[in-house]
Amino acid sequence: MALSNRTLAGMRQSSWIRQMFEAGDKLKKKLGPDNVFDLSLGNPVTEPPALVAEALLKLAEKPLPGMHRYMPNAGYTHTRNAVAGALSRELGMAFGGEDIVMTCGAAGAINVALKAILEPGEEVVLLCPYFPEYISYVENHGGAVRKIPAGKHFVPEPDCLENSIGAGTRVVIINSPNNPTGIMYDDSFLAVLSKALIRKSREYGRPIYLISDEPYRRILYDGIDYASPVKHYANSIIASSFSKDLALPGERIGYLAVNPVMEGKTEMLNGFIYCNRILGFVNAPAMMQHLVSNLLQVSVSIDGYQRKRDFLYHGLQSLGFNVIKPAGAFYMFPQIGDGDDIGFVGKLMDYGVLAVPGSGFGAPGYIRLSYCVEDEVLEGALRGIKKAVG
Amino acid sequence: MALSNRTLAGMRQSSWIRQMFEAGDKLKKKLGPDNVFDLSLGNPVTEPPALVAEALLKLAEKPLPGMHRYMPNAGYTHTRNAVAGALSRELGMAFGGEDIVMTCGAAGAINVALKAILEPGEEVVLLCPYFPEYISYVENHGGAVRKIPAGKHFVPEPDCLENSIGAGTRVVIINSPNNPTGIMYDDSFLAVLSKALIRKSREYGRPIYLISDEPYRRILYDGIDYASPVKHYANSIIASSFSKDLALPGERIGYLAVNPVMEGKTEMLNGFIYCNRILGFVNAPAMMQHLVSNLLQVSVSIDGYQRKRDFLYHGLQSLGFNVIKPAGAFYMFPQIGDGDDIGFVGKLMDYGVLAVPGSGFGAPGYIRLSYCVEDEVLEGALRGIKKAVG
Repeated sequence: MALSNRTLAGMRQSSWIRQMFEAGDKLKKKLGPDNVFDLSLGNPVTEPPALVAEALLKLAEKPLPGMHRYMPNAGYTHTRNAVAGALSRELGMAFGGEDIVMTCGAAGAINVALKAILEPGEEVVLLCPYFPEYISYVENHGGAVRKIPAGKHFVPEPDCLENSIGAGTRVVIINSPNNPTGIMYDDSFLAVLSKALIRKSREYGRPIYLISDEPYRRILYDGIDYASPVKHYANSIIASSFSKDLALPGERIGYLAVNPVMEGKTEMLNGFIYCNRILGFVNAPAMMQHLVSNLLQVSVSIDGYQRKRDFLYHGLQSLGFNVIKPAGAFYMFPQIGDGDDIGFVGKLMDYGVLAVPGSGFGAPGYIRLSYCVEDEVLEGALRGIKKAVG
Repeated sequence: MALSNRTLAGMRQSSWIRQMFEAGDKLKKKLGPDNVFDLSLGNPVTEPPALVAEALLKLAEKPLPGMHRYMPNAGYTHTRNAVAGALSRELGMAFGGEDIVMTCGAAGAINVALKAILEPGEEVVLLCPYFPEYISYVENHGGAVRKIPAGKHFVPEPDCLENSIGAGTRVVIINSPNNPTGIMYDDSFLAVLSKALIRKSREYGRPIYLISDEPYRRILYDGIDYASPVKHYANSIIASSFSKDLALPGERIGYLAVNPVMEGKTEMLNGFIYCNRILGFVNAPAMMQHLVSNLLQVSVSIDGYQRKRDFLYHGLQSLGFNVIKPAGAFYMFPQIGDGDDIGFVGKLMDYGVLAVPGSGFGAPGYIRLSYCVEDEVLEGALRGIKKAVG
């Protein structure tokens, strides 16, 4: 009676990830924390790189005058310039500070962009499997979700892509490297996507925007280069954060970057700045903006993640799972033999293992394993999985 | 073409406060920064109390393990407990940690509460004059604004109050001490308001919620006690922040507190936690949560603000303005002789003074002067006002 119907409905369908988090708490009480192996959350155990702690200490020892005050809603000029410089070097494009809006994490960034762009009822296209929070973000701003089914290796077939974009489509969200699969969409797919978006935009007489959610852009393995969606498509926007690069997920620091060659980008950016304010974010946390400005070359070491990926991948393979070797991020998405992902996740809990059913990501028949955990947890989880299939 | 119609419309009507901020930038370039006296923004020049810097240094010197990671969306248990303890002492009520949800500032808090509570089309009642961002916050979540006209001394007449609450009313927002007037609604008004809300809730068969936005609760002058809205009404929610108490407005740290005696409060709190997540806030910034936990007894010194208030108040009085002496916050709201607030604000700019027309707060015929500025700025502004009326 206290809450609106839409809030109650949303809570009932609330994310599997959070449900597993809560189930995990109960399981830890039942089995003892050492007997629970939680691969359900993307909350890296890694501490931030030493340079983060050093930069923080420097700021704390010598506070900048006014460093906790309001700044323009877009963020500090020096921070926006630093982000633009790093993006330009990284992607080989020419971002200026004016193309950047600092936000409260990538989740804040996506909400700001959707709020600015969407007319009520317009469609946002998601590629299966997708990060489930996107559905709430779209609904927050009156949009409607349309899903493109996953093709081979989780990449949509060109036909499906074409058929899923219609007159009502205003935005496509792409997430690469992908949560939950760990795949990176390659340049050949991005070229197909871009051509489809250009053709459809022309057909319907107005731009379809591509939001590239890329918090895992720098978490890539085997030395591969990032295939950047925004390099392929002018009407594109990057939403990202420092949560994974600098292991600062609780600090809510991220940004929006508008493709510097987008037509009408100034209007778009002014809209983002306005929506950042009125949605109640107001601005990205001040001290974190100061902090990250000098740390744009810094990232957590990915060697450790790669080692964990290899361990889990080979372990799952030797148990007979059909699983794609992730190119990035820290998730793996094995297929479940009988296709009953929810049943299998339940069975895993009997052995103290927490995972998330693929059903929560628009891909039933798979489970998501998050491997940004301590080695002992990963080893224990693999033992549990072995028992569950044995 | 890039933005939705509703975003474009919102930007066109965008806040006077931000418009003055931008006009001020231009004026500074024209007249030189020393000749511009900016009373347009509530961005205190005060640095945080020394204890804030000390606590920050302590955290930076000895980082807590995992202090930048995700925590539950409601915030750290120790932070929620600390806020509950401080509120209980301050208001003489019995808040528990479970009654608190840590948020990205008070703006985030209000958006979370409105998102959780409002059905599309339901009304939110504002008391004139009001903080103009409320209108955006209500519209963000599909609500409709209804305004109660200001009565004598900016307190609504009981009749107006009664007539402004209808079958569609779901929420009333009260802001005390008030931005823009500096008045505090007293216990006798709060008792009238509470009785009206109880009667109307009964009449329409469902609760009307009172959101008390009280970031200025501790910025009170002349030793007066705070008249707390939530003490008068069970179905009430506090939205507040550390932006003013600890002078941390850029850090986006605040909270929601649900009246411990509210019926159905657990559902309400779960809704807040859920909406905090799906709106993209996710959680209040982690390090700031650690920081404020130990600083709940600390506040900026109000002596300085009181001195500035007295200086401006007596100055305006001696120039013949009709003005109410503020009980709190750091705004003053003098009446303009001919009622043309927008014209007068334009005239003030000729003398280098930046103020905000009352029209932006639902109260034409007044201007808002923000006195949380350096003494020289305040003195210069008063000289400019004198010239403008002379």
